[in-house]
Order: sequence, then C-alpha cells, then structure tokens
Amino acid sequence: MASKKKSKFSLPGFRFAGVSAGIKGKGKPDLALIVSDRPAKAVAFFTVNRLKAAPIIQGQRAIRGGSLRAVVVNAGNANAATGKQGIRDAFATAQAAAKLLKISPNEVLVSSTGKIGVPLDMKKIRRGLPAAAKALSSDGLAQAARAILTTDAFPKTHAVTGKIQGKSFRVVGVAKGAGMIEPHMATMLAYILTDLDLERGAMRWAFRRAVEASFHSITVDGDTSTNDTALLLANGASGISALRESSAGFAAFRRALDEVCRTLALKMVQDGEGATKEVEIFVRGAKTERAAKRVAYAIARSQLVKTSFFGEDPNWGRVFAAAGYSGETFDPSRVDIYYGSVPLVRGGSPTGAAREAQAHREMRKSRFRVTVDLKAGRGQAQVWTSDLTYGYVKINAEYRT
Amino acid sequence: MASKKKSKFSLPGFRFAGVSAGIKGKGKPDLALIVSDRPAKAVAFFTVNRLKAAPIIQGQRAIRGGSLRAVVVNAGNANAATGKQGIRDAFATAQAAAKLLKISPNEVLVSSTGKIGVPLDMKKIRRGLPAAAKALSSDGLAQAARAILTTDAFPKTHAVTGKIQGKSFRVVGVAKGAGMIEPHMATMLAYILTDLDLERGAMRWAFRRAVEASFHSITVDGDTSTNDTALLLANGASGISALRESSAGFAAFRRALDEVCRTLALKMVQDGEGATKEVEIFVRGAKTERAAKRVAYAIARSQLVKTSFFGEDPNWGRVFAAAGYSGETFDPSRVDIYYGSVPLVRGGSPTGAAREAQAHREMRKSRFRVTVDLKAGRGQAQVWTSDLTYGYVKINAEYRT
Repeated sequence: MASKKKSKFSLPGFRFAGVSAGIKGKGKPDLALIVSDRPAKAVAFFTVNRLKAAPIIQGQRAIRGGSLRAVVVNAGNANAATGKQGIRDAFATAQAAAKLLKISPNEVLVSSTGKIGVPLDMKKIRRGLPAAAKALSSDGLAQAARAILTTDAFPKTHAVTGKIQGKSFRVVGVAKGAGMIEPHMATMLAYILTDLDLERGAMRWAFRRAVEASFHSITVDGDTSTNDTALLLANGASGISALRESSAGFAAFRRALDEVCRTLALKMVQDGEGATKEVEIFVRGAKTERAAKRVAYAIARSQLVKTSFFGEDPNWGRVFAAAGYSGETFDPSRVDIYYGSVPLVRGGSPTGAAREAQAHREMRKSRFRVTVDLKAGRGQAQVWTSDLTYGYVKINAEYRT
Repeated sequence: MASKKKSKFSLPGFRFAGVSAGIKGKGKPDLALIVSDRPAKAVAFFTVNRLKAAPIIQGQRAIRGGSLRAVVVNAGNANAATGKQGIRDAFATAQAAAKLLKISPNEVLVSSTGKIGVPLDMKKIRRGLPAAAKALSSDGLAQAARAILTTDAFPKTHAVTGKIQGKSFRVVGVAKGAGMIEPHMATMLAYILTDLDLERGAMRWAFRRAVEASFHSITVDGDTSTNDTALLLANGASGISALRESSAGFAAFRRALDEVCRTLALKMVQDGEGATKEVEIFVRGAKTERAAKRVAYAIARSQLVKTSFFGEDPNWGRVFAAAGYSGETFDPSRVDIYYGSVPLVRGGSPTGAAREAQAHREMRKSRFRVTVDLKAGRGQAQVWTSDLTYGYVKINAEYRT
C-alpha cells in the first residue's frame, strides 16, 4: 500500500490538520480536521448527559448516514448550553467544512470541547477551516492531537499495526480528556481510525466492547460532560476485504482496537486534572461483572480514597467503606484487599502495620493496583482512576476567574 | 419541673459527660456518656453501608427493646472492620457502662467514630467509663459534644424550648460530622433528646421526616460512613402527657425537632473538611420531590461544581451539566439557574457577563443558594453542600501518615 515512508501515525486514505483559529487565543492550536479520501464506515457513542452540547446533536444526525468523510473538532468552546443558535452553528460548521472539502455536509461530524455557555465565534471557525483544509497531511495527526486539547497536559495518540490476509492494516487513535472524565463519557473525545473495511454490525459490536473496557472504565472527577464522543471510522484503504465477526482476521482487528482504546483511556487518567497517580481498581469475586464494575467505580470515585492515594496512605478502610456503600451485597467478613501484591485485609480483618508499611512503599509508584476480592461470585472488572490533589482543586477553582 | 437554673443545653432527666480515655491521646476528650434517669423511648437510623461497624450491630440490637437509658460514644477509633473481636468489644462496652449505671446492657447504645480497622483498646474504655460516670451532670452536654469529635473543627449542639399543654418542653441535639458526610449517613452521629413523652409510631414518623430533610440532605464528600447513627430519645420528664400524631402539641414538637436536626446538619456542612462555603442547592420544577433531590445531589456532589464554589466562579455550566447527568429527564431549553437571586440561565440560555459578575459577588459570601428550576413539574428539594478546597485535600491526604 504505502509507497512512501509512513510517519508514526499515518494510515492510508486519512489526512489530518491542526491549526489555530483564535478560539483559545495566543496562537494556540484549537481547530482540528480529520479527512478520509473515501467514505468511511462510521459508528459512534455520544454522551448520555441530558444537556447535550450542540455538536452532539449534529453528530447524532451525521452518524445516521452510516459513513463519514470528515471530522471537525474545535477546542476552547464546548458550544454547550448555547440554545438554538448553538445548534445552527454546529450545522454551519459542518456545511463550511463540506464546501471546502467538496463533500456533503452529512458526511461531516462536528465536535467541540471547552467552556460551556459561550456562543461559538463562527467568524473564527470560518477563517480557521480553510487554513486547516490547506494544512491537511497524512503526517498531520500530531498537529490534530494538539488542536483538540483543553486542560490536557499532553496530546494523546496511539497506533497499532497488524496483518490480516497477508496485508498490513492500522488502527490509529487520537483523543483528549483531562477533566469531566467519567463513564458515559466526559469531555472525552476519541477518534479511532482504521484502514480496514468492516461489516457494520461487527464494527459496532467490537467498538462497544472496546469502549466499555476503556473510556467507560475510567474516572477522574465523576462528572459526565455534555460533549463526549467516541468515533470509529473504517475506510477500507488497506485493500483487505471486509471483515465480519466470523472472519479470520477479526480477532486481530479487535486486539488492535482494544489496545488503542485502552491506551488512550489510560493516558486520560494519567493526564487527569492535577493527577500524580494512575491507580487500577480491580474488583473480583463479585456476583456479576456488572456488580464488580459498580463496586470498582464506588471505590474509584471516592474522594476519600482518591485523596489517600495522593497522600500515599494505605487507607484500606476507605476502600472497604466505599465497597460497602456501592449498593452491591457481599459478606464483609470474607473480603480480601490488596495494594499491589500486599494483602492489607484478609477475611475482613486487617493484616497489621508491617503490611501497611509495605503497601505505603507500593503507593510511592506512579502506577499501582488495588485489588478487592469480595468472594461472592465470579464477576470481575477494572476501573482506572487518578488521585485527588491540590492541583485538581487549583485547576478547577481557577478555571475561569 | 426545673427548680434550679438550667444551663443552655440541660433538659430534665438527662445527664451528660465527656472525658478523656486516652484513645485520641494528648488528653483530648474522646469518651462521651448520655444518661436518662428513666427509660427513654428510642428510635434510631443507622448507616446503610454494607460494611457496618461493630457498634452499629450493637446499636441495632439495643434499639429493638424500644427504650434506652444510656448512650456511650467514643471518638478516635471507629471499631469498624475489626472482625468478631470488634463486635465483642462493642457489647462489652455496653456491659461495662450498664454495670456502672446499674441498668441493663440492653438499655445502652454504643457508638464509635474515628479510624477504621484498628482494634478498640478496651483497657482505655474500661478506665474511661467510670470517670465519665462520675462526671455526669445535667450541665455536661458541652463536654459530651467535644468528646465525640474527630476532624470536626467545632462541637455541634442546638436546643429548642417550646410549650405544650401550658408546660415547657425541650429538644436538645448533639452531633458530630465533618468528613464521610453523605446521605444515609456518614460518620455523622446525632443524638436528639427530648423530655416529651411520645407515642412510638408518631415519634418514628416525625424523626424519619426530620432526618430526611436534614442529615439526609447534606453532602461533604459523597462518602457514606460505616458508623452513622441518628438517635432520638424521649424520656417524658417534662410531665406533658404522651403525644401522638393527632395531639394538639405534636406540631410544636415537630417544629422543634426539625429545627434541631436541620441546625445540626447545617453545622456539619459548615464544618465540612476544609470547607469555606455552605451552599444550598435548591431544585424546583422537577417531576417529583424524589427527582428534585436526585438532581440536587448530583449538583451538590459534583467535584467540578464544588471546586467552582471554592473559586467563587459562577460556573453555572457545571451546575447545568451535573443536572444533565443526574439521570432525571427534563428539557434543557426550559431550565433557569440562579445564584442567589441572580439569573444566570433563562430558558436554557446564558444571561451574559454582567449577570455573572453579579453572581460572583454573591459567591463571596460564606453562605449562598443556587436554584435550578427544571420546569418539568412541581417537585422540589434542598441539599446543602460545602466547597472542595485545598484544605479538604490536605486533611484527607494526611489523615494517617
């Protein structure tokens, strides 16, 4: 396929751009464009927040057609709680991009992230779009990744290459997210691109599973945003014939997709506002997988647990208490709790101060795992969370003032 | 009834003590005793946390008898996640107190608050109880109030005097709570005492309503503790004949009870760990009262909302977004949001920068109200919350290390 040398994040048939449209000010990049040179099959998941930002309404409309050619993302303004004008602006953005790219407005999905309640400055969007179209390049993903950031400390990209039918394929992802990170989702934008051709049902099923185990398994602050979007585009440019669930290569695609989604999701946790730790909450022995996830989220969201992570304090009592109020039933006198591989609770009772000292050392790492075994069944689930820090308070208390 | 001059918090038939048993160390008071000179009718609500501390198991047993003579509270150690020994210790505490006071162990309710997972030092309890019994005094409530505190910055007491049948009665409350404050409840201990005689069903009903509108309408950190207890004791020492729901004086009792519960609950929010603001989230126009409370809690718990309160930033977008993910349905384009009396959102759209400047001034106060009108029905509810501050992180990251 690729005759010239590929950049790390290029993939056949896709071009990218990230430019400054002046929305954020100070010349910061804030307008990204992703374009497929042919119609790409598209599936997407959007925020479940009742207050849907205008671009979500545009996106839900656009995705109905089942295929897309372009994605426009602006940062700095979420175009949320902006009334009917906001919705008109989202559709006008799609229209302006379509005109430039000579495609249909229905083939353009628009995303926005940033401040809520501020009308989008359409002059800036209209000025920025031609610049973005001009900058489109197969090597431009890094620029696009920068242009979709808000309070993020670093851009989030990941690429996986695989082989199916003797031909290589790629799955490449770009995402943003640092605050309002929660399941179902939270100004969390993720665009996953592949040059495979995929049967729609299989594509949707695989993406749903991948999103569930990644973007829907992390939490930073427990707040669900108005703008979340996870989009998968498959343009078939690899030349590999269309895959369905039963195809020999489908497992390879899923592995690549899962890795890209999970890597991006973990980057969001690492970049959680003010975060200094990435902690995996692993719950096993629950009655069901769903129960395990509920317990894991109760722990992962607990302010008391998250501050104890920041303090590197092996305060397993807070973990135990959060499991207790999760709403799931279990027998506390059977529960085991581990920090890393250090058992702190066995059969509901503490293992003592020496173990806590060991756990404290484990917690000095920037990444560690807390395991809770409920001994009530075979359900298990993982959720990734960050610590709650002075930095979090600083970032969010001073966001606008 | 009272021949000698009453102290501010005395009431007929009750005596109090607060002493240091050495659990907290440094001579700090940590053991409280409340005694009624006659059997007092008792109703109580306990934590819904699955991980119930040992004293909760003792308390649930004790309350079955329907009347109590004494309450023992220790601070510094929650006696939670302490296995079977913890349960034996809670019952042994009741037994030791009963022996000293020459009453039945079944007439003693035990509460504990403090660290989780540390065995209770029964030697200290056994040494402290005689000192507490000796210190019992009708003027001792202030001492008892100090002895039940943990991270609280100040003791929490409130007294109301009323008149029924031409005779005066009192409702006096003492409480603690600064962290793990959440509905259903959170190391939140509240003991409400009255010298009225009350019919059991009416007493239970009135207390449930009072608790719902007070201790179950506040949040500090969203964590539900293992040890919460709200207890109402009615010893009848006022000489006023027993009240039922239909009694002429019942409304006067309820007003007093509601005021005491609400005042204590608000003191808990004011004393929320690290808190600098007390904010009332008032949701109206919801489909039901229950829906209103759910929306109010989603807002009151939001880390993003709470940090914006700390920053005095009228970031109504976060309030709106939290309402959006509360799980309740409403039409965002009809919603109004006020900070104090300043409208920031009208019919789903922002009212502009001048209003925000006004709202910012409102937020400089240590107490203010945020009103959200969903325009979807007649349900309304209030929830009180604190701000999320550097102080909160400091207190909870450094609790034990």
